[in-house]
Amino acid sequence: MPRLIEYKDMQPKAKAVVEGIAQARGIDPADINNVWKALAAHPSVMERFAGEMKAAFAPGKLDPLVKELIYLAVSITNQCDYCIASHGAMARAKGMTDEMHEEFMAVVLAAQKGNKITMAYRVPVDRAFEEG
Amino acid sequence: MPRLIEYKDMQPKAKAVVEGIAQARGIDPADINNVWKALAAHPSVMERFAGEMKAAFAPGKLDPLVKELIYLAVSITNQCDYCIASHGAMARAKGMTDEMHEEFMAVVLAAQKGNKITMAYRVPVDRAFEEG
Amino acid sequence: MPRLIEYKDMQPKAKAVVEGIAQARGIDPADINNVWKALAAHPSVMERFAGEMKAAFAPGKLDPLVKELIYLAVSITNQCDYCIASHGAMARAKGMTDEMHEEFMAVVLAAQKGNKITMAYRVPVDRAFEEG
Amino acid sequence: MPRLIEYKDMQPKAKAVVEGIAQARGIDPADINNVWKALAAHPSVMERFAGEMKAAFAPGKLDPLVKELIYLAVSITNQCDYCIASHGAMARAKGMTDEMHEEFMAVVLAAQKGNKITMAYRVPVDRAFEEG
Amino acid sequence: MPRLIEYKDMQPKAKAVVEGIAQARGIDPADINNVWKALAAHPSVMERFAGEMKAAFAPGKLDPLVKELIYLAVSITNQCDYCIASHGAMARAKGMTDEMHEEFMAVVLAAQKGNKITMAYRVPVDRAFEEG
Amino acid sequence: MPRLIEYKDMQPKAKAVVEGIAQARGIDPADINNVWKALAAHPSVMERFAGEMKAAFAPGKLDPLVKELIYLAVSITNQCDYCIASHGAMARAKGMTDEMHEEFMAVVLAAQKGNKITMAYRVPVDRAFEEG
Repeated sequence: MPRLIEYKDMQPKAKAVVEGIAQARGIDPADINNVWKALAAHPSVMERFAGEMKAAFAPGKLDPLVKELIYLAVSITNQCDYCIASHGAMARAKGMTDEMHEEFMAVVLAAQKGNKITMAYRVPVDRAFEEG
Repeated sequence: MPRLIEYKDMQPKAKAVVEGIAQARGIDPADINNVWKALAAHPSVMERFAGEMKAAFAPGKLDPLVKELIYLAVSITNQCDYCIASHGAMARAKGMTDEMHEEFMAVVLAAQKGNKITMAYRVPVDRAFEEG
Repeated sequence: MPRLIEYKDMQPKAKAVVEGIAQARGIDPADINNVWKALAAHPSVMERFAGEMKAAFAPGKLDPLVKELIYLAVSITNQCDYCIASHGAMARAKGMTDEMHEEFMAVVLAAQKGNKITMAYRVPVDRAFEEG
Repeated sequence: MPRLIEYKDMQPKAKAVVEGIAQARGIDPADINNVWKALAAHPSVMERFAGEMKAAFAPGKLDPLVKELIYLAVSITNQCDYCIASHGAMARAKGMTDEMHEEFMAVVLAAQKGNKITMAYRVPVDRAFEEG
Repeated sequence: MPRLIEYKDMQPKAKAVVEGIAQARGIDPADINNVWKALAAHPSVMERFAGEMKAAFAPGKLDPLVKELIYLAVSITNQCDYCIASHGAMARAKGMTDEMHEEFMAVVLAAQKGNKITMAYRVPVDRAFEEG
Repeated sequence: MPRLIEYKDMQPKAKAVVEGIAQARGIDPADINNVWKALAAHPSVMERFAGEMKAAFAPGKLDPLVKELIYLAVSITNQCDYCIASHGAMARAKGMTDEMHEEFMAVVLAAQKGNKITMAYRVPVDRAFEEG
């Protein structure tokens, strides 16, 4: 297990990162989740990841919930238990209903199958897609 | 390379599958893409996969483009070149702009990093997520 | 592309490895497949891998075809195109029929789905399996 | 952790799925394993997966134990702890001896190595395999 | 295939990124490798990745060649053909000899095996490592 | 959970393997770590893996710490929790400082990103790398 550093015990730089995330999520910095408590001991990795997450989830053309679903799809494919638990919760917080989750899972599982099928049968890419 | 069977040369069962897909996409069955030409020689796998894809992409609560993005996110994570090429083209056909693709990639890449970071630092799942 | 070294041009140690494989398969050493022509330039990796393959495919309790199917199942899961092509051919040479391949693929694809489902829904291992 | 729904508390559709599996395995539906208790809350995913598993393990040309070994090979490659635990137990129940498990692991591990070697040295597929 | 944009045709921002890389490597910007020609059409992904690479390979406590070997180990494990080809070449340019490559491969392959063995046998983490 | 066999209860062949490892690490055989206690019930897998590890970590051109970092990079990429915990501890024992770990993680994470970027954008290998 990594050392989890509580917000009040973090270095100023880590505190600033956590405050930014807490503000964006409308939560108390003391309630920040474990990944940030673990990263607090690794400031350069923490800062870069926080910056990347902030940019990825910045308001844009894609809906915040859609971004959570994309993140969750990657996490299921990579089999990251922590990320499935945390971003599953975040997707629900952003409006994912049971019905949407069921549809989401159907696409994720169909994709796993499509991926393995095209590899197993060694399907060449269509000329039309190459020219796209 | 697998044997690619053209629509006109397929068995009736495979033809029926292709016709269903072609109709749903508004294309000529002769223009069906390679994965189905390869699967035409494997009828039971073909039928099950076609059924699963149809169910996954059936109209529902999630937007068709969102489903394509979820499929594409899985395919990039699994590194399936065929699926990246084909579903990338389909996502664009369903309205994905360059700007959306840029945002999509930012989330996909942030997720890859988040997945590896939580594993590398062995971050335990938060109690709050366990109870969710 | 790696340098592919033909049998006649290999060092004595690599030649000996290739001769052992060729004899076991009943082929001419000159017809050895590319992986060994590539490994001929990397003698220590070549020797260890050849030894491991020989031990794994030595006569035992599992049928030679069953071993090929296990090897192929791993290769599809890992998405190794070379291994899918080569061990697919070897499985057919050892008796895999179209019908068996269809059944094999059904199990491989069901397993991919089962793997992702249990991760996505974070299913805890049954006590009965833990005690097994 | 997901909500695990006991058999007696499941909806009729989920109950029917569990009864089918229990009958096929000769067990009491109350003793169904956790993956089905978790899936009971996700009926469409449950039904599709149950159907796919039933078809994959239907009597055919491949021995039931061979199918378990193929499933297990995929699960180890994908590093799915639940599936390794459950299908390891099922393989033993279907007759896998220690000696067979040892041989099985030798092939699984040789395949992992073969997969990485051919990728690392970028070995091109043999013309003979392409034409196969 | 993606559109590859030559240095002379890039937007000013992409040109600046390429110039920075070319200078660090002591090459002509026109000779930049394909990944950057492809990324030139995706400026935000390009800038972030370039920044991350620059930071990762900045002079520090680890030798430049060691960093290349770490990058290559990840790329082989992920089976990224482009990255194996490009970072293999860079490792050689930074001093990797045949003998070092042979040792490197031995460790990479032993690790693949160790990873699968501990998963397959479901080995629990030692208390000593947890407390570390 | 697997049966963990303590050193004193192992068969002579397993004992010999453990003694060799303990001597090389300068530890008491009774303090051998769990992977070997689990493998003691699987002698042929144990012997082969022990032999492979010994050869991989034999004195050579690469520094012992560098080899640990390569092993750790593979283990993080494969998401093997046991291996991350054990080889992380070994890397620290061989001299990895916090600063080195931070640099190491930066390279590992940059590589994950580079791997996915080149796949997602389908970047073709440069002619220069092919000819290398």
